[in-house]
Amino acid sequence: MRATRSSPILSDLPDIAADVVARLRERSPRVHCLTNTVAQNFTANVLLAAGAVPSMTAAPDEIADFVARADALLINLGTLDRERREAAEIAAEEAVEEQRPWVLDPVFVDRSQARCDFAANLMARMPRLLRLNSAEFAALANAEAGEDALNRYALDRLCTVALTGATDAITDGARAVAIENGDPLMGRVTAIGCAGTALVAACLAVEADPWLATVAGLLVFAVAGECAAVRARGPGSFAVELLDALASLDRETLRGRARLR
Amino acid sequence: MRATRSSPILSDLPDIAADVVARLRERSPRVHCLTNTVAQNFTANVLLAAGAVPSMTAAPDEIADFVARADALLINLGTLDRERREAAEIAAEEAVEEQRPWVLDPVFVDRSQARCDFAANLMARMPRLLRLNSAEFAALANAEAGEDALNRYALDRLCTVALTGATDAITDGARAVAIENGDPLMGRVTAIGCAGTALVAACLAVEADPWLATVAGLLVFAVAGECAAVRARGPGSFAVELLDALASLDRETLRGRARLR
Amino acid sequence: MRATRSSPILSDLPDIAADVVARLRERSPRVHCLTNTVAQNFTANVLLAAGAVPSMTAAPDEIADFVARADALLINLGTLDRERREAAEIAAEEAVEEQRPWVLDPVFVDRSQARCDFAANLMARMPRLLRLNSAEFAALANAEAGEDALNRYALDRLCTVALTGATDAITDGARAVAIENGDPLMGRVTAIGCAGTALVAACLAVEADPWLATVAGLLVFAVAGECAAVRARGPGSFAVELLDALASLDRETLRGRARLR
Repeated sequence: MRATRSSPILSDLPDIAADVVARLRERSPRVHCLTNTVAQNFTANVLLAAGAVPSMTAAPDEIADFVARADALLINLGTLDRERREAAEIAAEEAVEEQRPWVLDPVFVDRSQARCDFAANLMARMPRLLRLNSAEFAALANAEAGEDALNRYALDRLCTVALTGATDAITDGARAVAIENGDPLMGRVTAIGCAGTALVAACLAVEADPWLATVAGLLVFAVAGECAAVRARGPGSFAVELLDALASLDRETLRGRARLR
Repeated sequence: MRATRSSPILSDLPDIAADVVARLRERSPRVHCLTNTVAQNFTANVLLAAGAVPSMTAAPDEIADFVARADALLINLGTLDRERREAAEIAAEEAVEEQRPWVLDPVFVDRSQARCDFAANLMARMPRLLRLNSAEFAALANAEAGEDALNRYALDRLCTVALTGATDAITDGARAVAIENGDPLMGRVTAIGCAGTALVAACLAVEADPWLATVAGLLVFAVAGECAAVRARGPGSFAVELLDALASLDRETLRGRARLR
Repeated sequence: MRATRSSPILSDLPDIAADVVARLRERSPRVHCLTNTVAQNFTANVLLAAGAVPSMTAAPDEIADFVARADALLINLGTLDRERREAAEIAAEEAVEEQRPWVLDPVFVDRSQARCDFAANLMARMPRLLRLNSAEFAALANAEAGEDALNRYALDRLCTVALTGATDAITDGARAVAIENGDPLMGRVTAIGCAGTALVAACLAVEADPWLATVAGLLVFAVAGECAAVRARGPGSFAVELLDALASLDRETLRGRARLR
């Protein structure tokens, strides 16, 4: 992590994450998720396990009402039908107008040009966080997902960028950290990444610094994944244990397990 | 519970619920659920665990065929896209024509006016049961959710009203009962309420008295929730245990755990 | 099983299935699933547990891109809204053009004429496998689902037909086998059949002989179901255990449990 005036030191981050967890449980922020139908159920359950309150409608007629009454918004492009596309534009605009933090998860932009163009347009609405993998970054930013490219993109777009994978890298251009927690079983359950991003959206509702909120959310999720893997016997029980672990995660576990650099 | 000629005494209700459970397992009624995409999977699994057979299509072209071949219908407004709205109107009309009992679960009518107007229109199709929480009742009925308002609404609309929350209150205007069973973990799993209403729709298919069917369904669900909570370590395992508990629930457990007043 | 030149002997099939499992884990084929919203999540988790990589978009604008980059395609008609119908036609056409194996699962064609006509049209795109139950076969083929009718249909359509139920019958007109594995709990979890068909689609991506791929996929799924039933306490835990069992299934278990005739 680069040292800047505003950066907390690495060893403070687990405690900051624990504080965010406590605020989620105390304040129960509402998170509206415009997400794909594959991920909706698990995403809602991850949010509820962490203490947040999800809503999920994708109807263009009513999404503005839901966003206005939510504390944060997630837009995930996982299954992008026409109505969802229309709703995404309305939702992002409403989030900007009402100053709600919002997160873009441009799933699979590397697999379809229509989807990539759509995501590029949404970036103009200034999400607080862009979360994606290397292939998706390369497609969206027209650049290899190296450290410099990530920092430049974050600075240009005034947003935090989280590049997730075996290691998660989070940068806002000035501050960067890598989270090395997690478990291979996280790649064997559908919608795990989508649900993790929703958890970060919830964190943005209770932590004003988007970079800190993102680090907290992804660290909490990865550590809960490690706890779940200890008990799981395969991907089925892992998903169940992850929800249980999120609901009971405590400060000591975060301190003991965090692997940041 | 008010004493009326037709009211069973409170202590009979657990046995009546156990009879309904037995009929579900024996007759396997078909329940068509027009429900939101978040809740579809868990709702179907709750119905299957209880012995019923779910179908879920929302396509306007074919929903009338499905409703005509079902024994009961659930309309849940959880994610209300255009096609679902069109399908809801067709489904309710078909249910009335074919004299199938149907249930309205007007989720989130307190969050969007468009949704509230739509639900009010559907009430004209005379559902046997309206299930909602206090905020939703206030929005739909333009009245605080007190005992008198509930009774009046039930009498005016000739339907049973179930107000769910920490305690569930069920009235048809003449008979009223409160169910005090359940567990806080039921608030930590998405679609629990939606799935519980679907279970009641199944009960309406095997019990002609809508008030008794509703009491039976909600009591069974809440008691299964208590059994699940005994074994669960968090919201993930709770959802799994709830399905197991529903499939194995017996008369003794219902008698021993029911807390009605 | 009829003896023909190309038929492996019955006792070889469990080993062939174990080889297919090994290839799934090694090659991680991409399977695009155009499936109903009830089944999407569980289907994706079944594929991931087996080692395959699912994608699920139903948007007509982008489905051709996804199919072109996938190794196999599943079209399931479980909830058939307009957009899904349009997408199904595009997807099947793309699969034919790009020579990707594809599977049709015409769920509920016995319940709606519109759905049955649509499925009949899709058959012209020559799926490698048609998977359905007796009632669905009767509606689609206008014939009782007896052995002769199945064989004739398979020969006429140049596809493998898998009739699933308590026993699964798989024929390509020249070779036929019945799989007697499985557990009654498989009927108590929604989308089990849909997910099993998706697993067969994955097998088609790593085994060029569609009949062998189908036998392998359905045998693996049914044996995993038996392993899950040993540990399950009801339908909730059964679904979880099934995913765990799929991820850890081995050759010895397949050899020891297979009941083929």
